[in-house]
Amino acid sequence: MTKILSVNAGSSSLKFKLLNMPEEDVIAEGVIERIGAGLDQDDNVTIKLNGEKHKSRQEFDDHEQAINFMLAQFKELGIVKDFNEIKGIGHRVVAGGEWFNKSVLVDDEVLKKVERLAAYAPLHNAANALGIRAFSKIIPEAVEVVVFDTAFHQTMPKENYLYAIPYEYYTKYGVRRYGAHGTSHKYVAEQAAKLLGKPLEDLKLITMHLGAGASITAIKNGKSYDTSMGFSPLAGLMMATRSGDVDYSLMNYVKGKEGLSDQETLDILNHKSGLLGVSTISSDMRDLLDVYDTNDHAKLAVDMFVDRVVDYIGQYYFELQGADALVFTAGIGENSIPVRKMVIDKLAFLGVKLDEEANSKRGSATEITTADSKIKAFMIPTNEELEIARDVQRLMK
Amino acid sequence: MTKILSVNAGSSSLKFKLLNMPEEDVIAEGVIERIGAGLDQDDNVTIKLNGEKHKSRQEFDDHEQAINFMLAQFKELGIVKDFNEIKGIGHRVVAGGEWFNKSVLVDDEVLKKVERLAAYAPLHNAANALGIRAFSKIIPEAVEVVVFDTAFHQTMPKENYLYAIPYEYYTKYGVRRYGAHGTSHKYVAEQAAKLLGKPLEDLKLITMHLGAGASITAIKNGKSYDTSMGFSPLAGLMMATRSGDVDYSLMNYVKGKEGLSDQETLDILNHKSGLLGVSTISSDMRDLLDVYDTNDHAKLAVDMFVDRVVDYIGQYYFELQGADALVFTAGIGENSIPVRKMVIDKLAFLGVKLDEEANSKRGSATEITTADSKIKAFMIPTNEELEIARDVQRLMK
Repeated sequence: MTKILSVNAGSSSLKFKLLNMPEEDVIAEGVIERIGAGLDQDDNVTIKLNGEKHKSRQEFDDHEQAINFMLAQFKELGIVKDFNEIKGIGHRVVAGGEWFNKSVLVDDEVLKKVERLAAYAPLHNAANALGIRAFSKIIPEAVEVVVFDTAFHQTMPKENYLYAIPYEYYTKYGVRRYGAHGTSHKYVAEQAAKLLGKPLEDLKLITMHLGAGASITAIKNGKSYDTSMGFSPLAGLMMATRSGDVDYSLMNYVKGKEGLSDQETLDILNHKSGLLGVSTISSDMRDLLDVYDTNDHAKLAVDMFVDRVVDYIGQYYFELQGADALVFTAGIGENSIPVRKMVIDKLAFLGVKLDEEANSKRGSATEITTADSKIKAFMIPTNEELEIARDVQRLMK
Repeated sequence: MTKILSVNAGSSSLKFKLLNMPEEDVIAEGVIERIGAGLDQDDNVTIKLNGEKHKSRQEFDDHEQAINFMLAQFKELGIVKDFNEIKGIGHRVVAGGEWFNKSVLVDDEVLKKVERLAAYAPLHNAANALGIRAFSKIIPEAVEVVVFDTAFHQTMPKENYLYAIPYEYYTKYGVRRYGAHGTSHKYVAEQAAKLLGKPLEDLKLITMHLGAGASITAIKNGKSYDTSMGFSPLAGLMMATRSGDVDYSLMNYVKGKEGLSDQETLDILNHKSGLLGVSTISSDMRDLLDVYDTNDHAKLAVDMFVDRVVDYIGQYYFELQGADALVFTAGIGENSIPVRKMVIDKLAFLGVKLDEEANSKRGSATEITTADSKIKAFMIPTNEELEIARDVQRLMK
């Protein structure tokens, strides 16, 4: 029984989950917010232990202070007696570029590469590196591992990861499709293989990570074959506040009309578009579904979201030349019964049939199609922290 | 028997075809190049009459001069005795915005709208308007009609023509998906319906206009339901020199790295990308196919082109919930036997089967799949000029 900590450091936040491995039991989990951002009225630290939430309000100048506080809380709440009980730490890192096609042990060279890759994910990779440095200082004995959001997608063939722009930009700047949510797509694909009772290597799967950020992956023989996110997490599907794919000329036209800078244009595409931009009322799918029948903008936003998902299913079904199963995961994928129904209903022409009762349940992994459905569909809760802990344990051996 | 002239005025060119309607016989056709651009070594006027090409070299300051010369040639070559024999003139106009969902007779208001829509297609609409004004002056008696490249796509539902950006940009600036090649998609769809012996209104078709510019349209009950070109003709498929869809962040990153202006960035996406950008050697599909087996870059560019076409077929097959037929047209679609084969072979999993012999023929419209193919595919030469002349004749009545 080994305690392993999964860490996801954002620009001003730190999410964590402490697990007993290989039992995969969660000991404690939580989140620290507003790191380096001052305090507001709300509690910014939450630690969940034995079903109970411990909240507090504490100012942190940087990630190191936040991590020190978190560990002190671990002692205070009796989660650990000594920090050295934590034998392994897995860090989620957003951008792994072409350097990392799997999780690796942290050393100086790896850390430098993580920092250099901040060019691709400025806010995220820098914070990830800060988290790693802080833990190395506080628990130097623990094995540290980096788990990349892009690594799973490094198996994509060149014709799927290149853009049709001058080739020299790829060689000079490494600009290509990297994808995202790799840890999640990999985790739910493994779970789907278990539910299907078949080796992942033999399967064609379309996995849909539909959260505030959303991406769809075509998995061929257990490997990522194509994915909807691109060079950045702005690409592909319509998301909570992100546009997904747009005609470059269009935003250039709007930029000129509105007198926007490059950064302002990107900010609009990242933070004011998607469900929020079209609906004009909310970035939250639940809010939009609540008024679907009475608010035309909300209906339009939801319909567009569903259509884009179905478009990618179509595209990947053709790329894979068929599919054994579809998997829904993440916030919307796990919890939105109506969105799953709308998507599956659009696949009726292929003989895909929703099991309404199965689809109405929440919680654990479920097959949501009928026994005679031509393609099976599953709802599988994602668990990136567990997937990270598994990678740490594998690399500790 | 009525002589009708189809005119396609580009920024520095003028293409034309004179037809006898309703017989649909071509009397003469040709092209004038380098209007307002000075002369180079080559002949810039070509008129084809009775299978013979009449070439000359002539400087033109503007479209009016070019049109006057063309008409003088018509007399000299005995094509017409009097200009008033030309009873109708149809002008191809690139951008019709949301104002035009079909071809219309030219009047002052229409002409003003065509000029205002130059905001969307700066080079094209301005030239189109110049052409219309010139003809009105020279043959005032002729009925003039404008035929819009976007009109056929005005039937798309809102969820397919809107982008997931702030809604206000649509209401303020009319930015949305307009599509292109509408006259071509409509023409080949009508021909396909004839070949299938069914009313177009009953059919689901996927029409592929694959030329230097390329677009794919999903046609439902005879109407455009979705199309790959967007606000501008840059969007969608990979083309000869155009990128098609790219991650906005990616080009923004390249823009910063290379120190490019907005216009330079757009120029690269329009003129240095696509087949040319990836292959680094040519924008011409024929050149790339010639070295497909020996040049990795050429192979990559062709494979990417084919994959993107298949992606859209998949997407539209799902949007239409099936398809009665696929149609290939335009430069590559009509002439590239290997590209058609590569596309169809990727659809084998659906039971689509190429008839190799039928596919090896060029020229007239042909069914290129076997009798037992689950979905039929056709090669149909496009004829936008004829479709324009048909619209003129319809509106002359």
